[in-house]
Amino acid sequence: MIEEYDKWFEAHREALLDDFFTFLKFPSISTDRAHQKDMVACQQWLASYMEMCGLDVEVWETAGHPAVFGQAKAREKGAPTLLFYGHYDVQPAVPLKEWQSPPFEPEVRDGVVYARGAIDNKGQGFYTLLAVRAFLERVKERKVHIKVLIEGEEEVGSPGLEGIAEAKKEALQADHVFVVDLDMAGQGKPAVTLGIRGVANLNATVTNSKSDLHSGMFGGMVLNPARALSTVLGKMWDAQGKVQIPGFYDAVKTFSEKELSVLNWDAEVEEEAKPLEIRVFQGEGEYSLLESNWIRPTLEINGMESGYTGEGFKTIIPAKASVKLSCRLVPEQDPEKVLEGIAAFLKKNLPEGIDLKLEWGHGTPGVVTSPESATVKGTMKAYECVYHTPCVRQLCGATIPIVPTLAHICGGELVMMGVGLTTDNMHAPNECMGLDRFKEGFLSVTQILEIFSGGGLDGSYE
Amino acid sequence: MIEEYDKWFEAHREALLDDFFTFLKFPSISTDRAHQKDMVACQQWLASYMEMCGLDVEVWETAGHPAVFGQAKAREKGAPTLLFYGHYDVQPAVPLKEWQSPPFEPEVRDGVVYARGAIDNKGQGFYTLLAVRAFLERVKERKVHIKVLIEGEEEVGSPGLEGIAEAKKEALQADHVFVVDLDMAGQGKPAVTLGIRGVANLNATVTNSKSDLHSGMFGGMVLNPARALSTVLGKMWDAQGKVQIPGFYDAVKTFSEKELSVLNWDAEVEEEAKPLEIRVFQGEGEYSLLESNWIRPTLEINGMESGYTGEGFKTIIPAKASVKLSCRLVPEQDPEKVLEGIAAFLKKNLPEGIDLKLEWGHGTPGVVTSPESATVKGTMKAYECVYHTPCVRQLCGATIPIVPTLAHICGGELVMMGVGLTTDNMHAPNECMGLDRFKEGFLSVTQILEIFSGGGLDGSYE
Repeated sequence: MIEEYDKWFEAHREALLDDFFTFLKFPSISTDRAHQKDMVACQQWLASYMEMCGLDVEVWETAGHPAVFGQAKAREKGAPTLLFYGHYDVQPAVPLKEWQSPPFEPEVRDGVVYARGAIDNKGQGFYTLLAVRAFLERVKERKVHIKVLIEGEEEVGSPGLEGIAEAKKEALQADHVFVVDLDMAGQGKPAVTLGIRGVANLNATVTNSKSDLHSGMFGGMVLNPARALSTVLGKMWDAQGKVQIPGFYDAVKTFSEKELSVLNWDAEVEEEAKPLEIRVFQGEGEYSLLESNWIRPTLEINGMESGYTGEGFKTIIPAKASVKLSCRLVPEQDPEKVLEGIAAFLKKNLPEGIDLKLEWGHGTPGVVTSPESATVKGTMKAYECVYHTPCVRQLCGATIPIVPTLAHICGGELVMMGVGLTTDNMHAPNECMGLDRFKEGFLSVTQILEIFSGGGLDGSYE
Repeated sequence: MIEEYDKWFEAHREALLDDFFTFLKFPSISTDRAHQKDMVACQQWLASYMEMCGLDVEVWETAGHPAVFGQAKAREKGAPTLLFYGHYDVQPAVPLKEWQSPPFEPEVRDGVVYARGAIDNKGQGFYTLLAVRAFLERVKERKVHIKVLIEGEEEVGSPGLEGIAEAKKEALQADHVFVVDLDMAGQGKPAVTLGIRGVANLNATVTNSKSDLHSGMFGGMVLNPARALSTVLGKMWDAQGKVQIPGFYDAVKTFSEKELSVLNWDAEVEEEAKPLEIRVFQGEGEYSLLESNWIRPTLEINGMESGYTGEGFKTIIPAKASVKLSCRLVPEQDPEKVLEGIAAFLKKNLPEGIDLKLEWGHGTPGVVTSPESATVKGTMKAYECVYHTPCVRQLCGATIPIVPTLAHICGGELVMMGVGLTTDNMHAPNECMGLDRFKEGFLSVTQILEIFSGGGLDGSYE
């Protein structure tokens, strides 16, 4: 019956893409207070659209931006409950001058739509909604309870949803949870993602004087805080990329041979990243690049700033120097403990007497899910119906902050999925999504709905 | 006859300060093209004022901002020629919000004038002009040839004046050259400065990808350029502050015991810097703070920038990382060679394959002048007439880019002088100058004129 969904999509193609582009036009940048009105407008439009798709919609207020929840109950008791997760907020669009077309005016070039949110996550969220809509139009005697949760704070760590998750526990109960915010293994290569890494952030500022000092009048007499910071940062990694902070790797989960053997290790990382013009690839010591990204934690400098950064030269000794550090964490690492280790390292290795201020960010642990659950297997099958090629299992080095909480609160099995590609410029200028993948994503979700409502896992589907 | 000058100053005090404040009001920021018109207006006003002081004025066009040259010839052949040097351009006033009163609206608080340029160098240049004016009014049978050169590019390295210096060699001939842009040894402690350090600038940018990368999707696979840069910067100094770049100290002048013994080593560096709230002082290894500032070269980070530097957190691997480095050089060091050594160190210590771009700045060598010249001794005597306390000899860690050229072209002996204090906030917000010191500076220059026109060095003056 996949052909019926294909026909439905083609019959409505123009209107569906119009609706998608309307969704993309909202500059729903959750981190930027200047876009508060845009966030509200986007959320209201989304709630209406979800009603139109056949869902009973509730807007869940949070301490931050609201989440939109919709459901369509099954006609039968005992039918399985499916929860789809996505988000309507997007990353800031800066630097604007690097966009070929304006980020909030979707433009199709060669069958690819360019816009902020094209893939992350309006594209993936919207084809999920269309699949639900098409399914609800086609199937009247539903044997599945559908829930859709589209939140507004994924890009800022989901604090609002985190805060109400426990209170919404009943509404969030589900047997199968689908986080539709992930990538394929490559063009035409469907994949489900079994694990994602966590994250922990720490900003540090080292200050040695009240204001910048004249480098002639004071040079040779005063410790330069940019030097002090560089020196301690220079000690944080060895030349092989191993983090030198004591205890950093202590709690890292050791994956078993069996866990590793189900994963697809064939990704051609360097080949796929060609358009990004990466000069030096480096993993952690003896680990391969993919291992370093999937099953090992990292510590990265996300930003540094000190003194004069304008045109030309200015001969000062900066008053202060700042660094933004973040870790990606694997399961069993405690974000708090990891940050404490970094803070202790900074304190120990900075010169005595210099001022150190720390800004602690939120932490999210890593998550890994069972490779053999019905949720995972059903999703793989759905992808295979669409792509006619085996669906592989993979991990992902990125973080979706609410996932550990969702996995815990919903009570069911979790799978992470999606049709993103490395080259979609997530979080970067010229974010994009092929319209072929938009349709494939749509078809894949319709097949999930059919499989889980029709008992397709035992072979009766197709 | 110092009393006569004192009376003259007090009789005209209000008008003189009015004129001074008019000079301060021009935002003559040489480095900023947006202030081109202000530079022209300031230069024109200055030329008129110098005419009014009794000088024959020429405006010297250069490739950049013009220099203003004025002279009053002696009535006798064979009279000594004195050349006073200053500059009418100032540093940028940013960060504006840290100023207590606007930088180009001079405000007097507790007998101190606050404005950009109050001390550096409009204040010192203007009292010099007033001294020339008062002297020319008083002395009709002049036994001294006076030249005043006030340029417009000191704060950007004096490229324009540098370019025309050779062509203006005849006009610049002088027996005694006074660079009036320096500091005292402390409040009430007059000093002449025998040497200044040179400078050399180098900006470096390390790039590893076309754009910033998602730290989840790429973390563990890609070399972080901010890490690469921090690591190499961390190797540039040892924990005792010694520069680790091979050959960095090779050409450094060794000062003789005799050269060192005439200098005033009594400065209480840490005490004087109290208002700057400096947390950690550090010299170079075994050298004292003052030695490290006066007779040793330095390498400083003036600025660093990489990735995200806004509010909060952004989990990226930056595409690139930049650093601005500069050295202060002592006599006999070649700026070019020093920069080449740093560039070679960067290339050698950065990971192979990463992209390194260098921006080479201008270089100026260090200068040291004879401690026993008539120029130095006459200036010391002038200060002693005003302050009634011995004038000491010192060095200065800062740079005045045109000085090596001036010393060479003018043909005479050089002295550096002035009434600045560490706490005058040169190059920083709330730059200021005590009006008591403004008058003392004025009196000191009148005494120089009297001494050199009256043969005061052999005791006939006073």
